[in-house]
Amino acid sequence: MKILIKNIDEIYSSKSRVKKDQFILIEDNIIKEIETMDKIDEINEYDYLINADGKIALPGFINTHTHAAMTLMRAYADDMPLDKWLQNKIWPFESKIKADDIYWGTALAGIEMIRTGTTTFSDMYFAMNQVADVVKKSGLRAVLAEGLIEANDGQQGLNKALEYALNYNHTADGRITTMMAPHAPYTCGRDYLKQVKNVAQKNNLGLHIHLSESKKEVKDFLDDYQKSPVKYLADLGFFDSHVIAAHCVHLEPGDLEILKEKKVHIAHNPMSNAKLANGIAPVRDYLTNNINVSLGTDGVSSNNSLDMLKEAKMASYLQKIKYEDPTAINTDEILELLTTNGAKALSLDRVGSLEKNYKADLLLIDIQKDSFYYPHHNNLSNLFYAADSRSIDTVIVDGKVVMENSELKTLDQEKIYYEAEKRSLKIADDLN
Amino acid sequence: MKILIKNIDEIYSSKSRVKKDQFILIEDNIIKEIETMDKIDEINEYDYLINADGKIALPGFINTHTHAAMTLMRAYADDMPLDKWLQNKIWPFESKIKADDIYWGTALAGIEMIRTGTTTFSDMYFAMNQVADVVKKSGLRAVLAEGLIEANDGQQGLNKALEYALNYNHTADGRITTMMAPHAPYTCGRDYLKQVKNVAQKNNLGLHIHLSESKKEVKDFLDDYQKSPVKYLADLGFFDSHVIAAHCVHLEPGDLEILKEKKVHIAHNPMSNAKLANGIAPVRDYLTNNINVSLGTDGVSSNNSLDMLKEAKMASYLQKIKYEDPTAINTDEILELLTTNGAKALSLDRVGSLEKNYKADLLLIDIQKDSFYYPHHNNLSNLFYAADSRSIDTVIVDGKVVMENSELKTLDQEKIYYEAEKRSLKIADDLN
Repeated sequence: MKILIKNIDEIYSSKSRVKKDQFILIEDNIIKEIETMDKIDEINEYDYLINADGKIALPGFINTHTHAAMTLMRAYADDMPLDKWLQNKIWPFESKIKADDIYWGTALAGIEMIRTGTTTFSDMYFAMNQVADVVKKSGLRAVLAEGLIEANDGQQGLNKALEYALNYNHTADGRITTMMAPHAPYTCGRDYLKQVKNVAQKNNLGLHIHLSESKKEVKDFLDDYQKSPVKYLADLGFFDSHVIAAHCVHLEPGDLEILKEKKVHIAHNPMSNAKLANGIAPVRDYLTNNINVSLGTDGVSSNNSLDMLKEAKMASYLQKIKYEDPTAINTDEILELLTTNGAKALSLDRVGSLEKNYKADLLLIDIQKDSFYYPHHNNLSNLFYAADSRSIDTVIVDGKVVMENSELKTLDQEKIYYEAEKRSLKIADDLN
Repeated sequence: MKILIKNIDEIYSSKSRVKKDQFILIEDNIIKEIETMDKIDEINEYDYLINADGKIALPGFINTHTHAAMTLMRAYADDMPLDKWLQNKIWPFESKIKADDIYWGTALAGIEMIRTGTTTFSDMYFAMNQVADVVKKSGLRAVLAEGLIEANDGQQGLNKALEYALNYNHTADGRITTMMAPHAPYTCGRDYLKQVKNVAQKNNLGLHIHLSESKKEVKDFLDDYQKSPVKYLADLGFFDSHVIAAHCVHLEPGDLEILKEKKVHIAHNPMSNAKLANGIAPVRDYLTNNINVSLGTDGVSSNNSLDMLKEAKMASYLQKIKYEDPTAINTDEILELLTTNGAKALSLDRVGSLEKNYKADLLLIDIQKDSFYYPHHNNLSNLFYAADSRSIDTVIVDGKVVMENSELKTLDQEKIYYEAEKRSLKIADDLN
């Protein structure tokens, strides 16, 4: 299958300066050519033509930390104290979620991710075989891991999570890869963390964990172990593997140096950290120290969407507040956080950039329809700082068109809305 | 003209609890009836019918602080230090803007405001007769004031601003009211401020001013006058009039008490304060002290849109960060900031709420189309914390439909895009 995308107004990709008047030729799942329109006559064979006149192209966004099925809990609990939110709302609801609910919640997330320009997501939850089914069906790319809480999952859970990781790695035409995901240093003991890390390392799997999310977490570790959670994980050798650590909002002296030396990849979740009042992560310091920072939405219940454009603006504006500096981060860096840095965090090969021989994960964005793009002084700024996801017109993942002209190609929106709604309201009813 | 809106799923308005299955009857510019659908048979006469099945109704949003024509500068300058941003980009650009450019820039803002649910805006800029023309044409409601900078405008400017305020007050079928707008205490001297305040008071006009926006402003006043800008204005009697003060980010001890005692109305601009790295205003403290807080977008160049939904989410999430408390502000309070509090700040009579005998300024919002509304646990949360403006389907201002099914009824989108783009790019070119 060869797809030719012609008349692209501009391509924005990582650090490369904007390229104007381009075409892209995709063969199977690979970008075969990116060239200026004056060379399009050299292309005389293709199966499918997309005219991108009035549109810009970007790499698909990479959401490096989410719990997709938590769409089921959207607006079920907002503006609450953290302990009551978890104990009275989120945990009781989660305890009622069955495997097939996970399918429909993740499918709802799939619709939202495609519509808002996410082509890859990194998910840590339970019943992850259901999530894999949605990935297969939707055409999305994903890095999946069964979340492990020692008290709930124990040794058996660890065995199952490893089995899952080995069975599903490189499935769905290679769109699914897997990791191991011990939930957090405060929900998994030292020996358990070591064990998970060892099996991950032995099987060449990355690790995905929550880390230093709240002030309380850090304080508890200082009280109990006289060291920060970062130092605690470092001391037990956890960072000797490839690790993606979600949040990293609160650092103690020495933590930044550890994260840098151990090449820990950070999934920054500014919206979730704001909603739960955890604070603003020191992203500018991470970037200045060449620590790899990517963006995540976290679960919908602490966000309340999976919209990476909203996350991008929030990431930029919160850094300006934190450092009292309007230059703290700029749109070129935000593009990296959304794309190349995410691919690096997830060990994805030739993903996150629009270049020859890269995998064809890309967005076409309409810059003519919405007022947010007028005047056209800087389309990347207009996309990140002014626009809505409605300008995202076409989404291609692994060379397959999953949305075109805002029409979903792989997922049955009506059916998914119906099932997700029914199941979520039933759980809420049962809890009342 | 009688408009009947039937089958409204839910109405959200100010502190009133959600009302389900409602109809609204509008006669001319007034809400004549709001009732449950079981009483619709009593309505046997209307000229225009809107079926709001699958939609919720809210009062139109009120943007209490903007400079609408600054859409012309969208993405012209981002992520820059404040002094360079102003001196090298914003001021040189503004110096080239002509009166008819103001018309087209404001018209572009008009499209954006209608599409994002704003029905009233409070504008402080120059060539305000052009802004009034857009208000007439668009059908929007507005509170308009010529901005005054003493060094530029002087006595003649003050006379012109007063003449404008008197000539345009209560025009456009009453949709335009006017104020006097000395720019800020640091751009207008003490005597000038007193004079503006006196003419405003004598003519029963409110005052609109920037106040305590940056740390530097406050420090300069402490250095130069040994008092904060708030105390400085209080001491010269400025607050004896009706005042809407934009920003109020940084308070000195005693300032809050002054703002409370003098019943100053605050226009909170969280996105602009973030982008320019000015910080987060103490909104929770204002509300706890019964100080009236409304929401503004400020100009597009420091935002970069006029989207009050983005502003609403930002307002909520930044308060949670500032006070390290997820309960710092909730969706009911955000609704008040967006609607009733704005009407109060702008002295608008019977505006900002959906009640019998109130002016018919309202939004119909589609809660079926977008994934952001699934599941339907709480539609107000879904609107403010998850959705995009694209779910805003129909906008009515002063009893007139200005958008229906996402189609603009009063403004020529294509022509406005063309003119705003051409004029903005020409100014940028001339400056290069």
